Amino acid sequence: MARIVALRTHDVRFPTSLTLDGSDAMNPDPDYSAAYVRVLTDAADGHEGHGFVFTIGRGNDVQVAALRALESHLTGRDVDGTLADLGGLWRELVHDSQLRWLGPEKGIMHMAVGAVVNALWDLRAKREGKPLWLLLSSLTPEQIVDLVDFRYLTDALTRDEALAILRGAERGRAEREATLLREGYPAYSTTPGWLGYDDDKLRRLCAQAVDEGFGRIKLKVGADLADDIRRLTIARQTCGPGFPIAVDANQRWDVDEAIAWIAALGEFDLAWVEEPTSPDDVLGHAAIAKAIAPVPVATGEHIANRVVFKQFLQAGALQILQLDATRVAGVNENIAILLLAAKFGVPVCPHAGGVGLCEAVQHLAMFDFVAVSGTAENRTIEFVDHLHEHFVTPVDVRAGRYHAPKATGAGTEMHRSSIVDYSHG
Amino acid sequence: MARIVALRTHDVRFPTSLTLDGSDAMNPDPDYSAAYVRVLTDAADGHEGHGFVFTIGRGNDVQVAALRALESHLTGRDVDGTLADLGGLWRELVHDSQLRWLGPEKGIMHMAVGAVVNALWDLRAKREGKPLWLLLSSLTPEQIVDLVDFRYLTDALTRDEALAILRGAERGRAEREATLLREGYPAYSTTPGWLGYDDDKLRRLCAQAVDEGFGRIKLKVGADLADDIRRLTIARQTCGPGFPIAVDANQRWDVDEAIAWIAALGEFDLAWVEEPTSPDDVLGHAAIAKAIAPVPVATGEHIANRVVFKQFLQAGALQILQLDATRVAGVNENIAILLLAAKFGVPVCPHAGGVGLCEAVQHLAMFDFVAVSGTAENRTIEFVDHLHEHFVTPVDVRAGRYHAPKATGAGTEMHRSSIVDYSHG
Repeated sequence: MARIVALRTHDVRFPTSLTLDGSDAMNPDPDYSAAYVRVLTDAADGHEGHGFVFTIGRGNDVQVAALRALESHLTGRDVDGTLADLGGLWRELVHDSQLRWLGPEKGIMHMAVGAVVNALWDLRAKREGKPLWLLLSSLTPEQIVDLVDFRYLTDALTRDEALAILRGAERGRAEREATLLREGYPAYSTTPGWLGYDDDKLRRLCAQAVDEGFGRIKLKVGADLADDIRRLTIARQTCGPGFPIAVDANQRWDVDEAIAWIAALGEFDLAWVEEPTSPDDVLGHAAIAKAIAPVPVATGEHIANRVVFKQFLQAGALQILQLDATRVAGVNENIAILLLAAKFGVPVCPHAGGVGLCEAVQHLAMFDFVAVSGTAENRTIEFVDHLHEHFVTPVDVRAGRYHAPKATGAGTEMHRSSIVDYSHG
Repeated sequence: MARIVALRTHDVRFPTSLTLDGSDAMNPDPDYSAAYVRVLTDAADGHEGHGFVFTIGRGNDVQVAALRALESHLTGRDVDGTLADLGGLWRELVHDSQLRWLGPEKGIMHMAVGAVVNALWDLRAKREGKPLWLLLSSLTPEQIVDLVDFRYLTDALTRDEALAILRGAERGRAEREATLLREGYPAYSTTPGWLGYDDDKLRRLCAQAVDEGFGRIKLKVGADLADDIRRLTIARQTCGPGFPIAVDANQRWDVDEAIAWIAALGEFDLAWVEEPTSPDDVLGHAAIAKAIAPVPVATGEHIANRVVFKQFLQAGALQILQLDATRVAGVNENIAILLLAAKFGVPVCPHAGGVGLCEAVQHLAMFDFVAVSGTAENRTIEFVDHLHEHFVTPVDVRAGRYHAPKATGAGTEMHRSSIVDYSHG
């Protein structure tokens, strides 16, 4: 019987602050990094499961220490049994009472669980010879709800309600799978919009995004109102009237400030306003959403867990749900969040960029399309053209669309040489 | 000019799981631990600042790694300048954009900032020759609001409103200080109520708590309803009718389950219901509070930061605010939370127990009494008789009251021998 024999961890950091890629109103100089974990087994197939937490530099070592704290939960386990019950494994890791105290269910420890869970999904997908999105889309509704912990969710979504959603989406799975393989999934581009870029670069990258077929772009805002107006004017002139332009404040504002600032950008016909304030502030987002309607509020990349997402949906505090592959506790918790979004009829537009987030999160959006919400309408995955070359199966984004991965695994495996070359300290 | 020269960290763990002290519905076998930090300077006075994060065992090493990640922010700093502007230092640590990504403002990284901030307050209090509560109570309203970061709070509490609260409490400070020194501050006891204790031990400890003069006791509940009814029957019989008995579910329930379970305990005249569900669930607590009124909801020991506390107050989701000394980012953030509570007229009854939480949090409650809320009415600090012997200035709890510390510092210094004897790994 094959067993898990070790977790190997790596502190991988890319010096992105040198080029101001990724610069925004709250994060002037990120060094995009990955707290990276490999799950090793003694199986003859030689497969490894790879996962990571995306961070932006300092503290990546602490995130690695949290990954290491989970090793004793994994080593010695039967590989087949563990992979066959990832819902059970998720509960064991998230509800380890001593580790839970360090969140609970938030921050470094929770993200570490997510990386390990994602690595196990990568391993399972490799062993089953499927890309993760297809593996998930092949599960029965009962198998899918068994992956989800409904603790703290039942006032908004019960297991039976989730089953009904999934059964409703069973019809048409095959057709949507074929559509996805043929046409891909819509993408939008954040490449033009970083605050650290000058106006010429902004103009050039806006034109390029439109030329490349992206259906939407996003600009960082929130540091200086006059700058925002100037940059949005350039973007609107370059992209043309009616082209969807979203903005992202990266949590820069207080509630009243957000409402006033967004009002001052009223002429630009914003496609959405992202992260206007603290990601913990459900009631604040609800107030902002009410004030700026019909402009939608988008958020999620820093929402700590399914319980907070539940409240955002209950309170009407977001209109676009931005799933993140490595902020919550992995694939299982993201399935819970996809089911919550489907229950409330809110479109999911995943957060990506960073290190490997595009590679990871596309699988979840595609699974959502095939087996959960059953639609790609008003949905789009973020795309930033950074760091893809470090991944064994980089995304295939052409003509403004993510093309469905056919390679086995979860997309989360980095080249050995990149891990070695960018290992820190 | 004296400078900060190092942070020294220690992974201190006490084997409390052997006696089931601290056992509750979510935490069956905690090993009470401290991720401990000492701030060293080259000043001739030889003072060190001591702080810690309370954890319950596994993962304490990860918490220590997070403390270490802050060392580079501290070493080389001018001691006088740093201690004179702890509001500025707080902002620098909490808003370090790369470290902030790991929360933001929650979990391991945020608690690490709290321990360092608390250690600096301990250092400042020692250098000024005062206990922390008296040092804080000697500051002007302007000096106090300068310690607070109002970011994300201004829709509920502005700097001007906070100043007005503090100015309103200036009159009577001297009188309340004298009252406090003479009479102490009310305490309640959780010693009888751990789930792992048998009925005889429960009965004996209930009687002892009443005999010792505590005005309230608290029982852990939520694992099994029949057990809860049997244990509450014993407690009620032992303590007598009308004696305040609170219960604590330690986040065990979903929202509807909480409401039903508490209804089933209706005959016991509960003084409060603590942590009925996820500490992230503002809306869930609001629903529970509405359903179980007039029984109050108490929570706070796992609330991640001031933004979440703000919402609990805005939504009427808690009626008793349970401050914790080491969950949020230290003294400064706790001052923000005391001001929010004062604004909303909600009593603060700090969480204590654990390792050194009684020693630390008493200073905040006493400062609140002297300089913020100006009252101890309906307020009481938790007391558990564990592990006090490891502290240089242990609490002085007699006749059901915390007697105000007169020793200099923040109460957070552990004996050197305890640090050494219980160092882990």
